Order: sequence, then structure tokens, then C-alpha cells
Amino acid sequence: MKASVRKARKSDFDDVFKLIVELARFEKLKPPSKSAKKRLFNDSFGRKRKNNILVSTFDEYIIGYAFYFFTYSSFLAKKTLYLEDIFISKKLRSKGAGRLIFKELVKIAKKEKCGRVEWCVLDWNKNAIKFYDKLGAKPMNDWIYFRLTL
Amino acid sequence: MKASVRKARKSDFDDVFKLIVELARFEKLKPPSKSAKKRLFNDSFGRKRKNNILVSTFDEYIIGYAFYFFTYSSFLAKKTLYLEDIFISKKLRSKGAGRLIFKELVKIAKKEKCGRVEWCVLDWNKNAIKFYDKLGAKPMNDWIYFRLTL
Repeated sequence: MKASVRKARKSDFDDVFKLIVELARFEKLKPPSKSAKKRLFNDSFGRKRKNNILVSTFDEYIIGYAFYFFTYSSFLAKKTLYLEDIFISKKLRSKGAGRLIFKELVKIAKKEKCGRVEWCVLDWNKNAIKFYDKLGAKPMNDWIYFRLTL
Repeated sequence: MKASVRKARKSDFDDVFKLIVELARFEKLKPPSKSAKKRLFNDSFGRKRKNNILVSTFDEYIIGYAFYFFTYSSFLAKKTLYLEDIFISKKLRSKGAGRLIFKELVKIAKKEKCGRVEWCVLDWNKNAIKFYDKLGAKPMNDWIYFRLTL
């Protein structure tokens, strides 16, 4: 009985989607709508894939997931693995699943010749920040993230 | 005599690269190395394109550029146009070139059915922040950007 990580299969999607809703609640953000759920499935498993999913399992149950894709650093001229979401269900934390899924992401990033792994975290999510600190990641405190909603 | 915007051609690359170096100096960051320059050319104009370039011109001279690519929002389940760099040469600011290139990026984002345009800005770059404010963009002040360097 231990945590492990693998690529998500189509049949995992309903379990993953429950975790997305759990993450959205935790982050006090709006979870994806019904039509967004459909698009997310197609964009993750369809022909023109825009998103990659890893799942974290414990005794065959899906207890966490990571969404990632590749961005690009112009100054480094290398790909970046961008981590859009990483989440382990609240009931199953502190069993090493988060660390395991992160290690797998770093492995993928190195295989893809990325120069960096990057992601965003909510400033009140102190447990996550402590976790990222321990992994050797650095907060880019002098950068402000901007968004224009279309 | 006025500013305009178009897709970059291979023959523009040396001019664009001079502007990248100017931007790196302005941002007090390390400009791309010689090998990074080569990779950047291939990643922008080669078969497996990872980066898109727009150039801003004034009287046929290249006075600015934007690098962009597409990321993905899992909660929206829509693409995002991510603006990696936007820069107008210092000597040629306040002629509307920045606004023009930004408008073109929004047009591309809408055509590609993106839900958002996103980018990062250095917190001391007050002129840029004023410019983004005027465009209706919002700073995501409760998010911290994290980086793991590989």
C-alpha cells in the first residue's frame, strides 16, 4: 500500500474532475462549468492535446492530479514545464504523494530539455508554499502576474 | 509615417535580437547567450515552433516586438495567449506602437478562442503597469509566481 504516479487515462477523468472541483472549492474559485468539463476532456485526451494530466494513486484510488503543459523562455531559449494545477485530496495528504508527483514532473521536464518548472500559488496557501520551499523552488517576488479577460 | 504591426520574418531576426538585448538590459536580466540566440531562431522559425513573434515597425524600421505562445486554463478549459515579451525601443515610445501591438495580440487571442491574455511585469516598471492598467488588465496580486531552475 503506497502512493504512485502515472499518466491519466480517459477512464480516470471523472475521478480527476471531482478533484478539480475540490481544488476550486479550496482555492475559493469557480469550478469548471458543464461545457468546460467537456472541453477539458477533449483538450486533455483528444487529438489536439493542449494539456497533460498525471494522476497520483494510493491503493489504486486516484487521490491527486497534476495538469501541465510547456511554455517557453525567450531569454533562456528553452522550454519550461508549466504546472497549471497540482492537488492531492485533503484526506490523503502527508503520505508523500505530493512529493512523488512533483519528482515525476521534474523528470519529465528534464527529459524534455526544459530549463525551468514554473507555477503560481495563492499567497495565503502557506502549506503549499512551505512544500515548494523545501523542493528548492524560489518565489519570483519582484514580478506581478497580469491578466486581461476577453 | 506611422507605426504598424506584422508577423516577424526570418530576415527580421537580427533586428529583433538587438531589441531583446535592449530589453534584457532594461530589466537588469542576463541577455540570451550565443547558443540561446541560435535556439531562439529555430524555435521561432523552425518546424517545431515554440514561440511566435510579432514586430512593430515605424517607417519600415523594426522598433519593437512581442513574443507569445498559448497556455491553457484548466478551470476555464480555454486557451490563454501568454505574452512572454513585449518591448518597444526606448527612443520610439509614445507613438502608439505599444498599444497597436497589444491590440493585435488581443485580436489573435480572440481568433484562437482564448479566454484570457496573461503576462508578467517587474514590479518597479511603473510605466508598463500604467500602460496595462489603461488597457483594462488586472494584476493578480494574490498569486505568487514560483520557479524551480533545473
